[in-house]
Amino acid sequence: MLNQQKKDQEEHIVFMQLAIELAKNAFEKDEVPVGAVIVERKTSNVIAGFSNQMRQNSIAIEHAEVLTIQQAMKVLKNERLVGCDMYVSLEPCPMCAHAISIARLDRLFYAASDPKSGGVEHGPRIYESSSCHHKPEVFVGMHASESSELLRNFFQSKRKN
Amino acid sequence: MLNQQKKDQEEHIVFMQLAIELAKNAFEKDEVPVGAVIVERKTSNVIAGFSNQMRQNSIAIEHAEVLTIQQAMKVLKNERLVGCDMYVSLEPCPMCAHAISIARLDRLFYAASDPKSGGVEHGPRIYESSSCHHKPEVFVGMHASESSELLRNFFQSKRKN
Repeated sequence: MLNQQKKDQEEHIVFMQLAIELAKNAFEKDEVPVGAVIVERKTSNVIAGFSNQMRQNSIAIEHAEVLTIQQAMKVLKNERLVGCDMYVSLEPCPMCAHAISIARLDRLFYAASDPKSGGVEHGPRIYESSSCHHKPEVFVGMHASESSELLRNFFQSKRKN
Repeated sequence: MLNQQKKDQEEHIVFMQLAIELAKNAFEKDEVPVGAVIVERKTSNVIAGFSNQMRQNSIAIEHAEVLTIQQAMKVLKNERLVGCDMYVSLEPCPMCAHAISIARLDRLFYAASDPKSGGVEHGPRIYESSSCHHKPEVFVGMHASESSELLRNFFQSKRKN
């Protein structure tokens, strides 16, 4: 049982690291550096992974989480992602937080918190609302400092330009 | 001035009627009957219009509002829909309400209210949250009974099956 817990913990770290790597890719493409992956629990397969594509496509709502959910639903040919978890490098905004609820994801892991624009532990606290009909389990803080630093560097580089 | 107001009022009715027609199309395709259009104010052109496509594509987050915003951004090649309004047949859910904010739409007109799942005047009241950085003007109730009846008929037909 302890071995299983250790394996689970190691997997969480690997999956969050993947999300961070996607965020770094976004940075290189001049996108706000946020990355997300969706993992099927029974197989531990990563079935979708995206970074933000707001600038690239001129579509401001193409957040990493929304793109990842769309892709996962296509892969599984299922409009419910029961048995799947999301790992994302930043606290989802209210749009993405509710999309995660609609998608019926089991668990949400996010790295850094977002006091200004987050929708899970900040702002409208989507999962505590009466309009939320599925609440994922939420785990916060893995790789948080790495994700925060990436975002800080990005916005500092923007201010210099 | 009064003539202009009358013209504006007539246009609002026409645009909302379009959203309702799209909702009727959705009903025929066994989708939850919601329709949305986005209108560019200076030209009065309808630049995008969609109904829900959640069942058709097995993607539960393909709500009419999200699809319409994506299309409008593609048409205008702009990730901000400043100077545009949305007309939608039902109160947007929290995901869509926040997407409307991100898109910087000027005005939101919706027909029926949605006490169970709405995110504007119900649930998390997205536009009153600290995580909301743009609040559209909101107008409620035009064609409300027609939209409500459509939704009621849809869910009654589901319960019979």
